[in-house]
Amino acid sequence: MPEATILYGKPVVEQIHAQIRQRVTALTARGVTPCLATVLVGDDPASATYVRMKSNACRRLGLRSVPIHLPSNTSSQSLVDTIQRLNADPQIHGILLQHPVPDSIDERVAFDAIRLDKDVDGVTSAGFGLAAFGRPAHRACTPQAILHILDFYQVPLTGRHAVVLGRSAILGKPIAAMLLNRDCTVTICHSRSQDIPAIVRQADVVIAAVGRPRFLQGDWLKPGAIVIDAGYNEGNVGDADFASCVEVAGAITPVPGGVGPVTIATLLLHTVAAAEQQA
Amino acid sequence: MPEATILYGKPVVEQIHAQIRQRVTALTARGVTPCLATVLVGDDPASATYVRMKSNACRRLGLRSVPIHLPSNTSSQSLVDTIQRLNADPQIHGILLQHPVPDSIDERVAFDAIRLDKDVDGVTSAGFGLAAFGRPAHRACTPQAILHILDFYQVPLTGRHAVVLGRSAILGKPIAAMLLNRDCTVTICHSRSQDIPAIVRQADVVIAAVGRPRFLQGDWLKPGAIVIDAGYNEGNVGDADFASCVEVAGAITPVPGGVGPVTIATLLLHTVAAAEQQA
Repeated sequence: MPEATILYGKPVVEQIHAQIRQRVTALTARGVTPCLATVLVGDDPASATYVRMKSNACRRLGLRSVPIHLPSNTSSQSLVDTIQRLNADPQIHGILLQHPVPDSIDERVAFDAIRLDKDVDGVTSAGFGLAAFGRPAHRACTPQAILHILDFYQVPLTGRHAVVLGRSAILGKPIAAMLLNRDCTVTICHSRSQDIPAIVRQADVVIAAVGRPRFLQGDWLKPGAIVIDAGYNEGNVGDADFASCVEVAGAITPVPGGVGPVTIATLLLHTVAAAEQQA
Repeated sequence: MPEATILYGKPVVEQIHAQIRQRVTALTARGVTPCLATVLVGDDPASATYVRMKSNACRRLGLRSVPIHLPSNTSSQSLVDTIQRLNADPQIHGILLQHPVPDSIDERVAFDAIRLDKDVDGVTSAGFGLAAFGRPAHRACTPQAILHILDFYQVPLTGRHAVVLGRSAILGKPIAAMLLNRDCTVTICHSRSQDIPAIVRQADVVIAAVGRPRFLQGDWLKPGAIVIDAGYNEGNVGDADFASCVEVAGAITPVPGGVGPVTIATLLLHTVAAAEQQA
């Protein structure tokens, strides 16, 4: 049996980077340097790594990044105050609040304090609603990265059945809404769903976003299905069991080297768009 | 074959009305009369009827209603100005902008001008997002009415497969999100979906919300499925073909006398809740 096509993130990233470079050059000529503020609360080493990767990517592509690191005992109000200061700062075009924040903070309140036009990570309730309604707003970055990959590899979506495994606010819910707006029939499964393999077997496109290592099994798939693995678990392992899925799928994103790097590129692209809109 | 149980709206409405009366009495004792502003733009006779039904229901239950009727040539900006005046008026607790508005107006911009705590019809993008995330916000009234009916008749939802036919911003999308948060596996179908009958056949619960008369056919159903008909078409006809569905379904809401009256009661309940929060 032929093995699946591997949908690498790299060429998608390169295409997005080329766009970013061009638009940053145009902005710089007008005296504007796109600037992303990254807010990290607490000492989670993985979160610190993610923030550093985003800052490094900014630097490589000519964007500024302003890293803000708050202690783990930061109050919700103090975090909201920090965000409002960034909202009011005309030098800052985009704000990233790294998820997750410590349990003592109401993350939703903090996310929703971000000004809509600076919400380049697409985490506000209003931004989610506008995205679900197909209206202008920065999309949540990981779901948008998934669409970038599907579009880059010309995966047809209209009328196709997409099954989304996971219902998180930053991934499962927005990718379901965005695939619906791309005219997919969309099914959302989660920890309380019954007989997930039987549902997955109907899918033309499967989005694995449950946060459980190697959850999606190859023998659940319809032969030829497109698998997008949006998971990232300890030990560089995705939410799909790559070894078995690659035998049955028509195409599959790898982990690492699939959705992750495209997500970072998408965040930068949104920051550039925010700078264009605000400048 | 036994016919389906008919899920009448009337006892659900009576239960909600009893709650409203009690809470209105408590508010009145504090000198507060819950007040709903209804905004009607243009001369659509059906819309005028809906608004009048809502105003009449307010009066019968001790709420005030302030009807505002704007001409069909009202500009988006002028409508937004009217809404902002109502936002700022402490006598007004809830604002209903009757859908649809004339084509010359950007309905989404008008909806999103409604202050979140006065959005008793649950139409703002932020309110939609908060509902999708399971956070406090007035829910969209028709989807919430559907949940009121399902709960009143003790229809189990956890782990069940719900199929939503329709993806509108005020019905299909929010009911899908709300059923997902009630632990249903949710599939959303629409005009571009393929083989809808095969998808419906898997459903434990079917929500008909396509706006096409008698669309859902009985022979698409799994025997015993619960059918919620959220449609309302000319001639008092729903989106389900009642005659054929009643033969196969386990239970079904009628049209008229099903979801419609519960929706109006839900709007009033939200207005009372808004008055409690604001007073």
